[in-house]
Amino acid sequence: MSTRSITTAKSIIYSSHGVPQDVIRVHTFTIPDAEGDSVVLKSLGFPINPSDINQLEGVYPSKPEKTTKYGTEEPAAIAGNEGLFEIVQVGPNVKELSVGDHVIPLFSNFGTWTSHNVAQEKDLVKLPKSLSVVAGATISVNPATAYQLVSNYGLEKGDWLIQNAGTSGVSQMVAQIAKSKGINVLSVIRDRSDFDQVKAKLEAQGATKVISETENGDRAVGAEIKKLTGGKIKIALNSVGGVSSSNIARKLAPNATMFTYGGMSKKPVSIPTSLFIFKNLTCKGYWVTENTKKDPQSKIETTEELVKLYQSGQLKELDVNEHTWKLDEFSDDQILELLKGVVENAYNGKQFIRIV
Amino acid sequence: MSTRSITTAKSIIYSSHGVPQDVIRVHTFTIPDAEGDSVVLKSLGFPINPSDINQLEGVYPSKPEKTTKYGTEEPAAIAGNEGLFEIVQVGPNVKELSVGDHVIPLFSNFGTWTSHNVAQEKDLVKLPKSLSVVAGATISVNPATAYQLVSNYGLEKGDWLIQNAGTSGVSQMVAQIAKSKGINVLSVIRDRSDFDQVKAKLEAQGATKVISETENGDRAVGAEIKKLTGGKIKIALNSVGGVSSSNIARKLAPNATMFTYGGMSKKPVSIPTSLFIFKNLTCKGYWVTENTKKDPQSKIETTEELVKLYQSGQLKELDVNEHTWKLDEFSDDQILELLKGVVENAYNGKQFIRIV
Repeated sequence: MSTRSITTAKSIIYSSHGVPQDVIRVHTFTIPDAEGDSVVLKSLGFPINPSDINQLEGVYPSKPEKTTKYGTEEPAAIAGNEGLFEIVQVGPNVKELSVGDHVIPLFSNFGTWTSHNVAQEKDLVKLPKSLSVVAGATISVNPATAYQLVSNYGLEKGDWLIQNAGTSGVSQMVAQIAKSKGINVLSVIRDRSDFDQVKAKLEAQGATKVISETENGDRAVGAEIKKLTGGKIKIALNSVGGVSSSNIARKLAPNATMFTYGGMSKKPVSIPTSLFIFKNLTCKGYWVTENTKKDPQSKIETTEELVKLYQSGQLKELDVNEHTWKLDEFSDDQILELLKGVVENAYNGKQFIRIV
Repeated sequence: MSTRSITTAKSIIYSSHGVPQDVIRVHTFTIPDAEGDSVVLKSLGFPINPSDINQLEGVYPSKPEKTTKYGTEEPAAIAGNEGLFEIVQVGPNVKELSVGDHVIPLFSNFGTWTSHNVAQEKDLVKLPKSLSVVAGATISVNPATAYQLVSNYGLEKGDWLIQNAGTSGVSQMVAQIAKSKGINVLSVIRDRSDFDQVKAKLEAQGATKVISETENGDRAVGAEIKKLTGGKIKIALNSVGGVSSSNIARKLAPNATMFTYGGMSKKPVSIPTSLFIFKNLTCKGYWVTENTKKDPQSKIETTEELVKLYQSGQLKELDVNEHTWKLDEFSDDQILELLKGVVENAYNGKQFIRIV
């Protein structure tokens, strides 16, 4: 093409860390024609994950490099790690991707809180267009974590795992994915007034048994669980910490492993000494970001498997609180106002911004 | 031999579990001539370990089978797991052992609180007679734990490990063994009035650096330690739990491992969530009893290495509070009185009973 077609991008950027609402601003810059093996991307939507907030606060260990390539005076980074894009232009050397394809970034720190961006073909993973915008835009963090935790540690059909925070996004995904593989899930959820309703929902989703945190700490319930599972719970998934982590660890079989991938209670992981010495428990962490860095192919394969589960109806997309960013209508002030409000509510359920 | 020589054994036995002083009693039985590949043993001395006490209480997972083979009405077991014996008679098929040899049991649950016992040749490990009675009788638990923790997990010359309870028997052994291998040790000890004296003693023994628990929790000290060690502490050895375990874990390098082999504080092991997720910490337990069960050869090799260290002067025997059991003089009441008193003091330093 001889005509030069300039894309105008609006991005949520930051140069320094602090209270997210204070450090984010809207920045406009131009993306020239795609060159070589790069592609120009238009965003379809992105979630706001807790890790995005922690990144803005400066307390998340994985962070994008700040750069002046967007034309800012101070070096800046575009916020956000997860999102779904449509390809609007491909460079002459791009081989597998075409205009109209839906893609997600292969790695974290991509800068997804933006109307447009540019990327090299090798740094993108293609998704079928039949996948919903929400499912596609949120596939990299929660479902990928759930899929890898259920699949990578030797669990087989008929085996049991236990998890706390049973109503969290990841935990709901874990239950669905485990069900698809014939793996039994014991989910622990916080005590609540609508316990029976929530329990019924989670059991319909795939949890084999649901108990409350009070029951999690009760010896008689522990004995029942031992009977139910044959004392053979192989893996615990902990995203709470504190007493909850002690109590799920106590239910594990000898030689089992507990993976910690979150710490909602803000309390340290707490493990009775005897479980280490006499039951040979192993405790490890799990971080999908690091896993993808070490083994990018794992992310590609995980995504393929998740797509199959979504398409077969075995996996339902996360519940999100959806907000709309109207690309042709919103002023910079309106965009910033929208984002600040969403960031404010980042811990009240999964927030999602759809770009139309 | 055609003459039948009967050995009279006096043993500390128990049939039920509870307060150790209440459940132990003295039992006399006869050991006939050694047959086949068995040997008759005379005890030279034995320590009282905390695990022996827990075994009597019924809260220790490894326990001897109770039997009527000693001639009791109710099934009973001889107390004790560790001790040094002299061989007083060998069966006709015994190949490697001779009368006068010093031996220790290969496995736990042997029944060492006794004047005599009988064993099969394959269940004994021979020690040189030059090794002191205390060193030999206490080689299986504390020094073996220390040796295996220092040697089995990839530590190399110049590497660092950190440990809490720096004044414990195992920790003092760890420091000496590490020094013999050129491995650096950071030992954390409780705050105390004679801190400088204790620190000097431990440093002379082999600890590269000694800090207090208050310093263990101090950020500035943490920064100093990072500088001193290059941020490369590979292994933490935890026998305390609680805050102490958090603070030694925080000082570890990425991808490091913390081993828990004790829980002196009686508080659970406590690990900041971020160490699991972002620093890829692994936490495991360590139990020499189980290790020997799985791999008896490891115990034999560990004992050989420890003997070399003792003989070269690189390892000093544990400090013990020694008591004497006079075999030909003490009545059953006197034996029981002695044992009850020692059991009473089992947590006030290492108690040792020498049999003369």
